[in-house]
Amino acid sequence: MQNFFTPKSIAVIGVSKNQKKVGSVIFNNLIKNYKGKIIPINPKQKSIQGKKAYPTVLDVKSNIDLAIIAIPANFVIRTIDQCGKKGIKNVIIISSGFKEIGNERLEHELYKVLEKNKIKCIGPNCLGVYDAHSKLDSLFLPTSQMTRPKSGSISFLSQSGALGSALVDLAAYEDFGFAKFISYGNATNLTETDFLEYLGKDKQTKVICLYIEGIRDGKKFMATAKKIKKPIIVIKGGRSEKGSKATLSHTGSLAGSFEVYKGAFKQSNIILADNLQELFHIAKLFDKLPKTKGKRVQVITNGGGYGIVTTDALEENNVQLANLSEKTKKRLTALFPKICIVNNPMDLVGDATDERYKIAIDACMRDSNVDFLLIILLPQTPLITKSIIKELNQFKNKKPMVFIVTGGVKTKPFVKELEKNDFPVYEFPSEAVKAIKKFI
Amino acid sequence: MQNFFTPKSIAVIGVSKNQKKVGSVIFNNLIKNYKGKIIPINPKQKSIQGKKAYPTVLDVKSNIDLAIIAIPANFVIRTIDQCGKKGIKNVIIISSGFKEIGNERLEHELYKVLEKNKIKCIGPNCLGVYDAHSKLDSLFLPTSQMTRPKSGSISFLSQSGALGSALVDLAAYEDFGFAKFISYGNATNLTETDFLEYLGKDKQTKVICLYIEGIRDGKKFMATAKKIKKPIIVIKGGRSEKGSKATLSHTGSLAGSFEVYKGAFKQSNIILADNLQELFHIAKLFDKLPKTKGKRVQVITNGGGYGIVTTDALEENNVQLANLSEKTKKRLTALFPKICIVNNPMDLVGDATDERYKIAIDACMRDSNVDFLLIILLPQTPLITKSIIKELNQFKNKKPMVFIVTGGVKTKPFVKELEKNDFPVYEFPSEAVKAIKKFI
Repeated sequence: MQNFFTPKSIAVIGVSKNQKKVGSVIFNNLIKNYKGKIIPINPKQKSIQGKKAYPTVLDVKSNIDLAIIAIPANFVIRTIDQCGKKGIKNVIIISSGFKEIGNERLEHELYKVLEKNKIKCIGPNCLGVYDAHSKLDSLFLPTSQMTRPKSGSISFLSQSGALGSALVDLAAYEDFGFAKFISYGNATNLTETDFLEYLGKDKQTKVICLYIEGIRDGKKFMATAKKIKKPIIVIKGGRSEKGSKATLSHTGSLAGSFEVYKGAFKQSNIILADNLQELFHIAKLFDKLPKTKGKRVQVITNGGGYGIVTTDALEENNVQLANLSEKTKKRLTALFPKICIVNNPMDLVGDATDERYKIAIDACMRDSNVDFLLIILLPQTPLITKSIIKELNQFKNKKPMVFIVTGGVKTKPFVKELEKNDFPVYEFPSEAVKAIKKFI
Repeated sequence: MQNFFTPKSIAVIGVSKNQKKVGSVIFNNLIKNYKGKIIPINPKQKSIQGKKAYPTVLDVKSNIDLAIIAIPANFVIRTIDQCGKKGIKNVIIISSGFKEIGNERLEHELYKVLEKNKIKCIGPNCLGVYDAHSKLDSLFLPTSQMTRPKSGSISFLSQSGALGSALVDLAAYEDFGFAKFISYGNATNLTETDFLEYLGKDKQTKVICLYIEGIRDGKKFMATAKKIKKPIIVIKGGRSEKGSKATLSHTGSLAGSFEVYKGAFKQSNIILADNLQELFHIAKLFDKLPKTKGKRVQVITNGGGYGIVTTDALEENNVQLANLSEKTKKRLTALFPKICIVNNPMDLVGDATDERYKIAIDACMRDSNVDFLLIILLPQTPLITKSIIKELNQFKNKKPMVFIVTGGVKTKPFVKELEKNDFPVYEFPSEAVKAIKKFI
């Protein structure tokens, strides 16, 4: 599998003089950002962008580790045969026009020619791969329309290309760190299970996110998932009757009963996200937090109403609230102004300073009745400054801390700074609470 | 009530030389942005910021329509008496230190002195008022920490000041248009019902949003709500046991059983938001959309997976999906490439152009089987341009259209442009669907 992500040499089949064509976008991204050798394949051109072009892969003398194919579906079979003869073992087929448009015959031919040549294939009908570490990038969406995330530890496996790319684009905006993004389309020979197994072993991947509509071999998938010790978070497309029907024409998947999937996910320790935004809300916690030793959550706030709606959300989601020890209560009550409420939620009120937060957090870190801190920081209040972030760093690896920060243009730099320091931040209480529920 | 929002003259009681004090922040905001006469009251200064200062309101010769009071709680009663003697009928008391810290005696004294002088009062323990049209602004959070929204039609009534200000700050960032924001704190004489009644009659207010922890007089509130023909959207704080306990120390409210509130809201045609973000997600639709004639929703997408998860969300929330007429299906199938799916969801696929969207939307506008359009636009795909927005305007008042647009830095200007044209846009399918469910 590794040749999909860090090949020494790549042939891009279907590069043309037209810079807007899929093959050209991929070729241009690669020559700009990837360190390996990039070879354009085009039957009519002698050179493209200053690189010598070849009519077919068979005309290339040097070794080729990976072929990326972006040509009309009708020419794919012949090209795969040539790849086989050339000894290429990994191909990404971007081209569509197979079973997803009802062309089962061509799909089956493709399956056979891949088998015959012992070629591992991603696709067809996919975006392929973006590796944020090696910068291997077969996405045909130009970077001017879709930004790529920085390198990090989250990998995202998506059966849908457009859905995947929209979410990856958003994740880049929100500064998530990625290991690999894989859009695998029709999964003609390599399936979701193969990728899952690979990501389970991949050292750069800490958290695995999945968008799937259907699973080819449920038992194998479950067995694979069970063996993986990393968090696996899934959002399932086709949960409803009409949604499920639509998957058939989308990726040719039989979505099957959602109840069956739910059961299978539960058995395999797979975390089910309820909607798209939750997928990354949950991933953020696994990516950034130390393991929690317990489930008792303490809320700290500088806005009474925010503390209340957060507590409501925790109780409604059956998350356990911490009970501060008498010792902690006594100490903080003595230290804080009378108007503060030392309880759960703990209300440090509107004139809370950085120092008051520091004292409150320190006390919770020392209190064995508290496992997890959910900290609301409303920076509209006058005495909260950016220096609080430095203070927070000293507590980072003691117990998990999650932040809720809501606000406008003045608040965004504060959030960025918190996230740069690897603190997970949410805009709203219910977002934080739903992610925490699935984390603890 | 109108003197709270458009007074000709305002006395700010508690302005000092210290620019950071609450009274000074309010005074500075007012002299910068409000057109009426602003009079600083301070017993020790002769002038503040070039404006003649007076020891008490009784020393002012001219008429005063509104007094904004930001002095320690102990001095408030005497000051109210002075306001009464001066003939001031409206006061906003920012000061805290009353029943919210258990000082029931002072709270009762305040109640009596207000009664005696026939003064209408907002507060105490509140932020007071921001009127986005008149620019009357008693919020003591400087604009450098909290941005004010532009003028528009949404009014927001909040029992919690910090919660209100965080949401208003965010709303400004997201370009919501506001009529009035009222933070009413302890509601010593004017209560939520009085404000609700006022907003019901206020010509600038089209949509009413509320954050409440407790209601003083349930029957009166319900009767008032029932008479109002505008949408009223509520988020309730203190829904859970521990959340409810926390309301007592926050605003001194007895939150009561949430089930009772739920029933009362339903009877009064009040829309209940499930969480903070939903409050504004729902308000956006009532603010921007024409009335819908039915409940049948058609999904149009350029990403198959997005269409599927959106359909899942619609069915899971029991929103009715439209069935395109045979005539529409036939026509579009003939016009579109074979790979497009003319159904619900309607998948215009990744190479969809502005023109293809226009044709699809036009067909749905003409199809009497469709009441409401939910349009997914993923602008990562190469052939969608900003010009599509101009095309969309021609359909605006025919049937409601809601958009889902997800993506990063390149997508944000596209979203801004859609919103500038008054199209409601959501980042995620489930956000849009939950708001639509409460709108139709």
